[in-house]
Amino acid sequence: MSNKALEYVGSRISAENLTGFCARVMQAFGLSADHARQTAEVLVTTDTWGTHSHGTRQLLPLMHNVRKGGLFADAEPQVLTDGPGFAVVDGNYAMPMVTSRFAMQAAMDKARTAGIAYSAVRHSGHFGAAGYYAVMAAEHDMIGISMTNADICMTVPGARSSVMGTNPIAYAVPAGKERPVFLDIATSVVAISKVIAAKTAGKPIPEGWLVDERGLPTTSTDTYPDKGAVLPMAGHKGYGLALLVEILTGVLTGASFLSGIKRWLAPEPEPADEGHAFLAVNVESLMPLDQFKSRMDAMIDEVRSAPKAEGSDRIYLPGEMEWERRDAALRDGLQLPDYVLINLFAVAEQTEKTDELIALLKKE
Amino acid sequence: MSNKALEYVGSRISAENLTGFCARVMQAFGLSADHARQTAEVLVTTDTWGTHSHGTRQLLPLMHNVRKGGLFADAEPQVLTDGPGFAVVDGNYAMPMVTSRFAMQAAMDKARTAGIAYSAVRHSGHFGAAGYYAVMAAEHDMIGISMTNADICMTVPGARSSVMGTNPIAYAVPAGKERPVFLDIATSVVAISKVIAAKTAGKPIPEGWLVDERGLPTTSTDTYPDKGAVLPMAGHKGYGLALLVEILTGVLTGASFLSGIKRWLAPEPEPADEGHAFLAVNVESLMPLDQFKSRMDAMIDEVRSAPKAEGSDRIYLPGEMEWERRDAALRDGLQLPDYVLINLFAVAEQTEKTDELIALLKKE
Repeated sequence: MSNKALEYVGSRISAENLTGFCARVMQAFGLSADHARQTAEVLVTTDTWGTHSHGTRQLLPLMHNVRKGGLFADAEPQVLTDGPGFAVVDGNYAMPMVTSRFAMQAAMDKARTAGIAYSAVRHSGHFGAAGYYAVMAAEHDMIGISMTNADICMTVPGARSSVMGTNPIAYAVPAGKERPVFLDIATSVVAISKVIAAKTAGKPIPEGWLVDERGLPTTSTDTYPDKGAVLPMAGHKGYGLALLVEILTGVLTGASFLSGIKRWLAPEPEPADEGHAFLAVNVESLMPLDQFKSRMDAMIDEVRSAPKAEGSDRIYLPGEMEWERRDAALRDGLQLPDYVLINLFAVAEQTEKTDELIALLKKE
Repeated sequence: MSNKALEYVGSRISAENLTGFCARVMQAFGLSADHARQTAEVLVTTDTWGTHSHGTRQLLPLMHNVRKGGLFADAEPQVLTDGPGFAVVDGNYAMPMVTSRFAMQAAMDKARTAGIAYSAVRHSGHFGAAGYYAVMAAEHDMIGISMTNADICMTVPGARSSVMGTNPIAYAVPAGKERPVFLDIATSVVAISKVIAAKTAGKPIPEGWLVDERGLPTTSTDTYPDKGAVLPMAGHKGYGLALLVEILTGVLTGASFLSGIKRWLAPEPEPADEGHAFLAVNVESLMPLDQFKSRMDAMIDEVRSAPKAEGSDRIYLPGEMEWERRDAALRDGLQLPDYVLINLFAVAEQTEKTDELIALLKKE
């Protein structure tokens, strides 16, 4: 089976076919055509940016959650309370991508009148790449900011074990001639996937990534992830920012926080109760849109034109690499890494329509 | 003169006397009693937190700006346009502390109805410690976030020279039995004052703080600040967050941005045109206040109770050190470092009431 998947390594699959495949898989697990399509759109867009750790690779664990009761295929998100500039959304353990699109859309709708709006989401799960929802706002001439908490795996200064999640923050800002400025980062010093990759390759990691079971810096991954924890970026600064994310996404939303969050990748997942926060700023409320966009272009141009460091021939704006990868992926098709392909075949094999589904993944 | 200042080293001055001194000095430079009192309150509060780099030490350069036309003693901030969840404020180069309090108050007033609100400030200058304005919100049961851009001194990945300011972010969140969680950080890897302190002491700096004039990492401060630049925290992550601050405080507010900002510490300062952003979230719009505060207390307790790393006997919440220093300062008086005292005497000596003013600084 994984042999069959590996025949696809190096091949190109169009974003359209990959989206169709993912949507049909999810329908086979009981999702509505609409929810399946929305979720597939988030996952495939993430792959086009080259962020394969958070793209269609996640279809397998997401559907595992649907099978085991961590998520509910037929649930719908709903607004619990709202006001001129805010909405509190109950995700009801629907697909977190559907809930997150719904919540960011609610923030954008309110921001159009209020200038700025915040959506607070409870009863959700792993929502994929935070950046997707920020970019939704930028595509409608708004500034988007999105965040989530997550199950604990990160320590804090003075502690020896996991206290918080890697609590990502993403933002996107529209420009004029330029593409949106776009950042999506974990507040940990490094993505967990990079630690696991070093462990798999049997390589040491740089000092500053992990602490061991005594809470001391280590360059060994021998006992990770059973013992030890990843560190926040930039010491107390990253710790403080991660805690702000925890407050805005967990404490203020009514979701779980810190150790209260269930692990969505557990063998027998329960509803995770992650919380999310989405912020939209309607640029036109504050400044004529053309003026803002010209100012963004000028800012981008100034950063890009700065004198280069020795050995550097280009300064990238946040998101620039992702947009270039996306252009190539939409033009030439997606080349998916082996671990993604293996997941895609594995999830198709859990349905009764394996061959029919895999046929949708046709090579370009 | 500085001899006289140094007689005060080790002495304690009450926060009340220090505030009175600062206010009277500013009145001698032409500020109204109200603006002088507001500005003194910001500077002295900052000293009580132990953040002396941004406290009353700044009275001297602020008054230099008033004398030279970088700030206007008789100007008032005004709201240019507003809506349910936002206000655009023109600082008119009034005292930036007065403008910033005004703008955060406007955001708080709007957030009471809208749930969340954003104040965008243009035509301002150096506003001191970002944290002061965030704490204003927390004292009124709101979450406060404040940011500013600043004159360029920080490079970005791939560049060899200064591209951005150290663009600080601060936040404060009210709790129940616990003190507000409170963070105030520059997005640079280290405060410029620490680089200068190492240079003054003739000590090398750790790798990762500065690049030299070729844009390469250096541990030498020999040619700084004439050449080279400080690095963002956490590499591309800090760069990306600093750029978000630049957009929210500079591009979106109508203030200057990047190299357009004038240096407020220049010998002949012009209006700096820094921009600020203030965000207030009215907790009670989203959740009963008691419930939120209990949840904050529970979160704080969980972080603080985590198993300690070897060699660590305590985990600090963001702001906890500052609140403890403030308690001690209000109880025992402030012990100001020599460089602060020298500045206080120097600014008093630029007035015609030197002795009368210095008499206000009486030791406890």
